[in-house]
Amino acid sequence: MDARRYAHLPDPFPMWRGGSLHRARISYETWGRLNAARDNAVLLFTGLSPPAHAAGSPEDPSPGWWEGMVGPNLALDTERFFVVCVNSLGSCFGSTGPASEDPATGKPYRLGFPDLSVEDIARAGFETVRTLGISRLDTVMGPSLGGMVVLAYAALFPGAARRLVCISGTAAAAPFAIALRSIQRECITSDPAWAGGNYSSDTPPSTGQRLARKLGTVTYRSAAEWQLRFGRQPIREGMRHGGPFAAEFAVQGYLESLAQRFVSAFDANCYLYISRSMDRFDLTAHGDPVEVFRKASLEQALVIGVQTDMLFSINEQHAVAGFLEAAGVKTRFAPLACIEGHDAFLVDLDTFGREIRSFLDSS
Amino acid sequence: MDARRYAHLPDPFPMWRGGSLHRARISYETWGRLNAARDNAVLLFTGLSPPAHAAGSPEDPSPGWWEGMVGPNLALDTERFFVVCVNSLGSCFGSTGPASEDPATGKPYRLGFPDLSVEDIARAGFETVRTLGISRLDTVMGPSLGGMVVLAYAALFPGAARRLVCISGTAAAAPFAIALRSIQRECITSDPAWAGGNYSSDTPPSTGQRLARKLGTVTYRSAAEWQLRFGRQPIREGMRHGGPFAAEFAVQGYLESLAQRFVSAFDANCYLYISRSMDRFDLTAHGDPVEVFRKASLEQALVIGVQTDMLFSINEQHAVAGFLEAAGVKTRFAPLACIEGHDAFLVDLDTFGREIRSFLDSS
Repeated sequence: MDARRYAHLPDPFPMWRGGSLHRARISYETWGRLNAARDNAVLLFTGLSPPAHAAGSPEDPSPGWWEGMVGPNLALDTERFFVVCVNSLGSCFGSTGPASEDPATGKPYRLGFPDLSVEDIARAGFETVRTLGISRLDTVMGPSLGGMVVLAYAALFPGAARRLVCISGTAAAAPFAIALRSIQRECITSDPAWAGGNYSSDTPPSTGQRLARKLGTVTYRSAAEWQLRFGRQPIREGMRHGGPFAAEFAVQGYLESLAQRFVSAFDANCYLYISRSMDRFDLTAHGDPVEVFRKASLEQALVIGVQTDMLFSINEQHAVAGFLEAAGVKTRFAPLACIEGHDAFLVDLDTFGREIRSFLDSS
Repeated sequence: MDARRYAHLPDPFPMWRGGSLHRARISYETWGRLNAARDNAVLLFTGLSPPAHAAGSPEDPSPGWWEGMVGPNLALDTERFFVVCVNSLGSCFGSTGPASEDPATGKPYRLGFPDLSVEDIARAGFETVRTLGISRLDTVMGPSLGGMVVLAYAALFPGAARRLVCISGTAAAAPFAIALRSIQRECITSDPAWAGGNYSSDTPPSTGQRLARKLGTVTYRSAAEWQLRFGRQPIREGMRHGGPFAAEFAVQGYLESLAQRFVSAFDANCYLYISRSMDRFDLTAHGDPVEVFRKASLEQALVIGVQTDMLFSINEQHAVAGFLEAAGVKTRFAPLACIEGHDAFLVDLDTFGREIRSFLDSS
């Protein structure tokens, strides 16, 4: 069962930092119906790694990455809105990325893929909704990486969205986040199996990818949550792994199982490209942020995040809200007290759902 | 120039989790003079990686790891106190550890070294000051790992210290810290050059060690400090390194230079042993903490740390102070507002020095 559709991007598709793609495509899923006025669309960008499958549907009832948030009478109410979720350009769940075939060579792009920027992910989403005949979104929305993408969207395509929801995002990656992401990339590129990006799909750099994902997972959560959830529980016997310095605590088993799942699902080069695009994102590349938002012709914005986020700090989110407000956009800033850290938007659906629904209902 | 002295540990030296060491020794340095009553000694334990060289002295004027804190009229006033700093058992700066020669084989212990516990580090310090004719310390003190060691010291040797200073420590490693340290260890053990611990000193697992140290460094600081210090400054041209996904930001260059320094100084197996001992530390192994401290016959305690510490959270430090207080020890808890994170005790010497000096002066 597969609910994905595919949008063909303009050929050539120009990349923000140079180069271009040919015959590129974006995989997306939709929920709800586009109304006759074509003005009820919500475009949803994802974090670093999810596919377009945000929620189950008759065509693919398996749970999505934001199951419980997208559907009839949920926060993204599909009785009212036509929701489109895109798999990011550069990813590997149907959209064109480093693991895709380069039409010029008939082989995977690998490191021959041009530099990827958050701006390219935004443009690919913009072109996707254009193929659906949508010229102005009701709302452009995204968490994490997606929270950067929506800002790039506003900067690149003035007037293309009436409202904006930036969830646990930032206007420019902070050095702490850059440090943590660059160590993850180095875990992958240091794995001999990475082979300068030329690994085969049978022998991916799984050791490096596992380490990268473990570190990623730590940065997505919070110390307070793990204290409650794991404490000092020992690892279950069957989960011990790792030779002479084997895992001993439940939290280590949890990280290992998430990491293994990730390695089998995500391409290493795609991870490297998307991860670096996040480090490089800086809204000031488009000019003074207040000017950027003034030109964007947004009516309303919601900037929402959590105080325990170590990767996209609440201060950075506060700054985004400040720019929007100074640009005359009616803005709600919602700093939430959730203890789950960066990933709270995936976990505390009650709190996030309430804020997002109340925002979407407000006009 | 070398100011180190060596204490020979009792032979055999029994290890907390089983096994024993033969002909083991501890390297230490001292500052100030032991008075006639032999009651003015301060025993200082270190964090994970420093040597016994806490401060310069006539015998070794090079700056120590706590330069500016130990000396005449400084916080640890050597006009008044006889300060002894030990290199931890299990480390590689003169004390016996996995890189030392096993007298039974004439070869390095490597993974043949018995399990190391925080309790063993405490006992080795206790035996060191015994060789100096000191039966009761004025104060036992330590930061980070050392902040765990002082608690083990109190538990194992009731009456052996009159006062205790626990700096950015904890009574039991939290799952968040365990996660972060275990990823560091896995970076090392995943490096093919580690070779199951049997690397030669010419070909250490430097890639894994560099990654481990970079991650360690991130966890020792805070996002707020790095925002001020590095922002989004690009890396200096000469510092770029790392091939296709080369470092681009100043913060990455900073991590790399610290990491390289560490690889050339610290033995990988020693790092693995000490790091794991921190995960395993749990004061409740000695019984109810309040009972433990009641039996310890401490007169006074200072528990000091910072609110931005992600590795040893201020809540954990608050808990330590609570146990001490409940045990009837006159306790000062000092949660500081420093923005430097866990390593603040190495950086903000003014704030830490003032608190520690005022505590040491208080009786």
